[in-house]
Amino acid sequence: MKILLINPNTSRGMTEGIAAAARAVAAPGTRIVATQPTFGPVSIESHFDEAIAAAGVAEQVRLAAEPPDAVVIACFGDPGLDAAREATSAPVIGIAEAAFQAAALLSTGFSVVTTMTRTCVMAERLLQRYGMHHACRGVHGTDVPVLALEDCSPDTLNQLEAAARTALARDRSGAIVLGCAGMAPLCRTLGERLGVPVIDGVAVAVKWAESLVSLGLRTSAHGDYAPPLPKPMAGWAGALRW
Amino acid sequence: MKILLINPNTSRGMTEGIAAAARAVAAPGTRIVATQPTFGPVSIESHFDEAIAAAGVAEQVRLAAEPPDAVVIACFGDPGLDAAREATSAPVIGIAEAAFQAAALLSTGFSVVTTMTRTCVMAERLLQRYGMHHACRGVHGTDVPVLALEDCSPDTLNQLEAAARTALARDRSGAIVLGCAGMAPLCRTLGERLGVPVIDGVAVAVKWAESLVSLGLRTSAHGDYAPPLPKPMAGWAGALRW
Amino acid sequence: MKILLINPNTSRGMTEGIAAAARAVAAPGTRIVATQPTFGPVSIESHFDEAIAAAGVAEQVRLAAEPPDAVVIACFGDPGLDAAREATSAPVIGIAEAAFQAAALLSTGFSVVTTMTRTCVMAERLLQRYGMHHACRGVHGTDVPVLALEDCSPDTLNQLEAAARTALARDRSGAIVLGCAGMAPLCRTLGERLGVPVIDGVAVAVKWAESLVSLGLRTSAHGDYAPPLPKPMAGWAGALRW
Amino acid sequence: MKILLINPNTSRGMTEGIAAAARAVAAPGTRIVATQPTFGPVSIESHFDEAIAAAGVAEQVRLAAEPPDAVVIACFGDPGLDAAREATSAPVIGIAEAAFQAAALLSTGFSVVTTMTRTCVMAERLLQRYGMHHACRGVHGTDVPVLALEDCSPDTLNQLEAAARTALARDRSGAIVLGCAGMAPLCRTLGERLGVPVIDGVAVAVKWAESLVSLGLRTSAHGDYAPPLPKPMAGWAGALRW
Amino acid sequence: MKILLINPNTSRGMTEGIAAAARAVAAPGTRIVATQPTFGPVSIESHFDEAIAAAGVAEQVRLAAEPPDAVVIACFGDPGLDAAREATSAPVIGIAEAAFQAAALLSTGFSVVTTMTRTCVMAERLLQRYGMHHACRGVHGTDVPVLALEDCSPDTLNQLEAAARTALARDRSGAIVLGCAGMAPLCRTLGERLGVPVIDGVAVAVKWAESLVSLGLRTSAHGDYAPPLPKPMAGWAGALRW
Amino acid sequence: MKILLINPNTSRGMTEGIAAAARAVAAPGTRIVATQPTFGPVSIESHFDEAIAAAGVAEQVRLAAEPPDAVVIACFGDPGLDAAREATSAPVIGIAEAAFQAAALLSTGFSVVTTMTRTCVMAERLLQRYGMHHACRGVHGTDVPVLALEDCSPDTLNQLEAAARTALARDRSGAIVLGCAGMAPLCRTLGERLGVPVIDGVAVAVKWAESLVSLGLRTSAHGDYAPPLPKPMAGWAGALRW
Repeated sequence: MKILLINPNTSRGMTEGIAAAARAVAAPGTRIVATQPTFGPVSIESHFDEAIAAAGVAEQVRLAAEPPDAVVIACFGDPGLDAAREATSAPVIGIAEAAFQAAALLSTGFSVVTTMTRTCVMAERLLQRYGMHHACRGVHGTDVPVLALEDCSPDTLNQLEAAARTALARDRSGAIVLGCAGMAPLCRTLGERLGVPVIDGVAVAVKWAESLVSLGLRTSAHGDYAPPLPKPMAGWAGALRW
Repeated sequence: MKILLINPNTSRGMTEGIAAAARAVAAPGTRIVATQPTFGPVSIESHFDEAIAAAGVAEQVRLAAEPPDAVVIACFGDPGLDAAREATSAPVIGIAEAAFQAAALLSTGFSVVTTMTRTCVMAERLLQRYGMHHACRGVHGTDVPVLALEDCSPDTLNQLEAAARTALARDRSGAIVLGCAGMAPLCRTLGERLGVPVIDGVAVAVKWAESLVSLGLRTSAHGDYAPPLPKPMAGWAGALRW
Repeated sequence: MKILLINPNTSRGMTEGIAAAARAVAAPGTRIVATQPTFGPVSIESHFDEAIAAAGVAEQVRLAAEPPDAVVIACFGDPGLDAAREATSAPVIGIAEAAFQAAALLSTGFSVVTTMTRTCVMAERLLQRYGMHHACRGVHGTDVPVLALEDCSPDTLNQLEAAARTALARDRSGAIVLGCAGMAPLCRTLGERLGVPVIDGVAVAVKWAESLVSLGLRTSAHGDYAPPLPKPMAGWAGALRW
Repeated sequence: MKILLINPNTSRGMTEGIAAAARAVAAPGTRIVATQPTFGPVSIESHFDEAIAAAGVAEQVRLAAEPPDAVVIACFGDPGLDAAREATSAPVIGIAEAAFQAAALLSTGFSVVTTMTRTCVMAERLLQRYGMHHACRGVHGTDVPVLALEDCSPDTLNQLEAAARTALARDRSGAIVLGCAGMAPLCRTLGERLGVPVIDGVAVAVKWAESLVSLGLRTSAHGDYAPPLPKPMAGWAGALRW
Repeated sequence: MKILLINPNTSRGMTEGIAAAARAVAAPGTRIVATQPTFGPVSIESHFDEAIAAAGVAEQVRLAAEPPDAVVIACFGDPGLDAAREATSAPVIGIAEAAFQAAALLSTGFSVVTTMTRTCVMAERLLQRYGMHHACRGVHGTDVPVLALEDCSPDTLNQLEAAARTALARDRSGAIVLGCAGMAPLCRTLGERLGVPVIDGVAVAVKWAESLVSLGLRTSAHGDYAPPLPKPMAGWAGALRW
Repeated sequence: MKILLINPNTSRGMTEGIAAAARAVAAPGTRIVATQPTFGPVSIESHFDEAIAAAGVAEQVRLAAEPPDAVVIACFGDPGLDAAREATSAPVIGIAEAAFQAAALLSTGFSVVTTMTRTCVMAERLLQRYGMHHACRGVHGTDVPVLALEDCSPDTLNQLEAAARTALARDRSGAIVLGCAGMAPLCRTLGERLGVPVIDGVAVAVKWAESLVSLGLRTSAHGDYAPPLPKPMAGWAGALRW
């Protein structure tokens, strides 16, 4: 089984880190093919970054050399999720949606610990769209920049742990969802320190993808996720036309 | 890995049917241990049936001979889900919650096709509790009795297919969720006939359970799902006391 | 008029306390018949306790010697409410639902003061199910054990009063709902101390029950609350079969 | 016990009809004092009518000769409800809120059958404000004018019955709420014909009011429903100043 | 273009202040005709005040000497809004609805700073009715009386500024909505001090009204906002009959 | 005042048509500068199209030759709205949000008539995000392709009129919102035929933009809409870096 793992930003280091985290949890027969857009920001910390990154996700799904069995979008804003679901009949999993679902299975209420405070609103909107705003009891920004997670210092780890402890107490939560794909390598350590489920969406998304593939379930091509209608595309997007 | 698969009703035939469906999708290393309560109704078609069955699920989790790695509750009302999550630190998956999650990953909106019309309200309440009422565009009763699914006649299959077709058209849906564990054996055939994702919660729950176990994620013992406080229990429930 | 007052736990002392509270507010012609399940926990402080207790409520409604005119379920989680409504055509009132309704009639927003913090989530789910989550501005755990309410010390009373004062101020609330049937005897004192409406669900449920009976209104037998379908029941539940 | 029953419109015939319906269900010791504003429309079938009527309710509560033990507002839009709750410390019950509460106690879902189609939106807004929009499965206008209910012809009764039957079937409902105080005299007949609970808010409101009074519960004077601040009032409203 | 600007209270000083604020932002061809009810309270700080004021708004719309091109209701509770929309085919804008809309266009989340704490509930209900409760992150009472705004002291201004700063920080908001028409003259100063959009509903409502008029858009006379049905009106309201 | 009007698709004919519609309603001093992305689809009829178009909107706002006073995004999915609001401190108006707001000011409930049925889900999600799902009573696809609107035949017009009539009746609505910028030229004719407010978001957005500019209100730069953090951007997006 081949899973196309898309890092929506263009930081090669982060693509590799996420790929390693994915491979660490993948089943023996699963091949993780990690990629990133040919254009766009090195990290996603604003709506502007995200708008470019969503187009980059669409590009990577559209131009995939061989059709994958499943696609994972490895950025907590789930950029380009709907576009990707139209562009392939393989299941497409966003790490935020997957993480929220796993957290809802393991606790009555969870908290999200994320990077820049200004991105909290993105998580809040996803929670509302996915119907998870009742299950999530708080979204907490730490103002750790995304790229600082790449070579995570002990201080950064401590900062995230402290934010998680505050969240658990203040929100009366039972689990922590990590609000950035770049936090994947820290998941185990944080889980051990906190003693509650700490959920990394990359790992869950890989397992969810394997699950759906093994069940023969594919994205619905009936109705809203039918393949895009063929039409001219101008400029660089001409390469993506149907 | 051992998954305790609880059929909340006391129909042995249905327990075996569900177990077979679960084994058909389980990974090589997964052992499905199927069980059912020592008491309660042979099918669950009312709130009264469900109240007894929920206690039966609690019994089976509490009295499991050896602790399982995960638990699946194989009735579409997810009876006893919260009780089970307190009674074990293993992940506990209800088939309705799992099915809704999978359907939300594969379509922008899905429809539920279930058995007795009077049980639609149970599905509707679960949808609301799980925050999936926006993703579900309709719950459709067929008035097929649960036990008629055991030796499913062609007529019954046709009836379900017809209900699903109506639902897809009327609800503008992209996927069908089967609203009864007893429909698990019909999932593949219905999927082939309908040409859209048809989702059986038993199968999804087994894969979700395997996924969480492989990630080392367990039910939160912090807060709302902490183990029950030890206390006397009267009557037959004395055997379940902590 | 005969009201079947079910204490869903098996503490006889609490059954008597609740019965006394009910009789203190009942109309002259009302007979309160207090009962409790033949099985289950002595107090309800977890989902596990509640799952057993819900079956106990179903048992008591099903096996009532003579059909009551109304039923009151005297535990703040309203366990077994839907099952009871199917099992009898008499009106069935849960004390949480009744208390929320009364509080909504007397204030623009109320706060709940309850026992164990871990049970707050149960109240929150009921609020959502009943559509009262906008009217309730906060649910506050005190970690007073349920059975400590039986012979309530001045300290316990003071603790509840303090929690209520905090709730009124922090939530900008106008009324307090007592989150446990065992608090019924404290209602008047707390109301005098706090100077706001303090609402005990047992009392409200008794009056709501009397009201519906006097109006000739009964639980709908049409649709979702129709009597359960007759079917075999295994084990101890055989006695409850239809 | 004295209940001030306010008919918010100025039709004396309707005031008397509603008063008779209230007296028919009141307890022996309850005195129903029926009144109506000194100004305003003879029926309430628009937002404009309602705005005037709400001021009329405020007038009647403010100017009540002797303080009542409870107040019932007998128009399905619950006009002036919040104002009345500030203007008296007695409990104030609106017939729509009471009817919705009773219906939610007796069914999993109910339908409203009302008069002019253009007033459906008023009921829908109340449902949302009271959190009852999930419990109500449909609001159905019949375009029967309010005053046609006064001397209700067999045709009108048949029209209401037909609308109720359609609502029960289409909405999958278990109970009918009558959407106009003027329908109170028809409640029993409709209930007998339909075989489901048919709920008249006037009757429920009277019993709810008696209940709260007997429990010593009064409108919260703490916070949002504190008495209005004293201040000058111009024109005819000078008589209402605090 | 003539805009009828209704101050729902009877304080002439406030009517003039609001009119001046409206004229300061009106387009060259716009004539602001400011008015107030012939009856009712000098300020609106309770539901009781508001019920009288809503009837006053209805009066002013009904009795307008010449039909206006648009109507603005200049009190933050939007009293009488629906009645006014029935009573004229001109667009009718409430300042709360307009302010919420503008704030939602300029920020992902805003806070309301208002006068008496007891009026916060009114804003909260409007937010829910307009669907803006997700966009508004907090409503903050300052307990500044409405009439204290007329000759606003430096202290009052400082108090409002402090409340706004607290709101921005605590609510993680991006804009401030002023919760009282009487704050209109302070809008510019507060905006300069705070460095975020500060939104006065009077100004927005005037521009929204001009916009709709210039587009030829009028209140729908189809359905719920059709003109009221002609009928007798008793007492002083006789002058308003249709 | 200069308004940057962005047509998010790359059909020059549609850009001109929308620009003409905008100029027809603009105030004398308003200059409409119409533009379109340098890349992307000629029409937006899928999530895939929209993901590319959102990046195109971000491009046009970022690369605007001279800073505009306001920005209008003229596609009913409001693509790139949040990105645009970060990329400029000018107010940014999406035509869907503006149209929903205007419709809510003119009716108690409205219906949307749009192009391809598969795009209904986009409108439904916007309604939920903006809190307008209660105000909108139905979204209706007509399966008219977007580009067929450019040289709109009488048949197309009749088809839209018929869909609108059906929507008004079935949804009990009072106004129609046109669900595509390409319908702007048909607005007046449809309004005359239907006799209810027909709302074209392009026109409303232009007036809303003029309004906010004239009030000196700008997009909040505090918090979630602060300018994007400067960072490298790969590929063609390098031109957009901060």
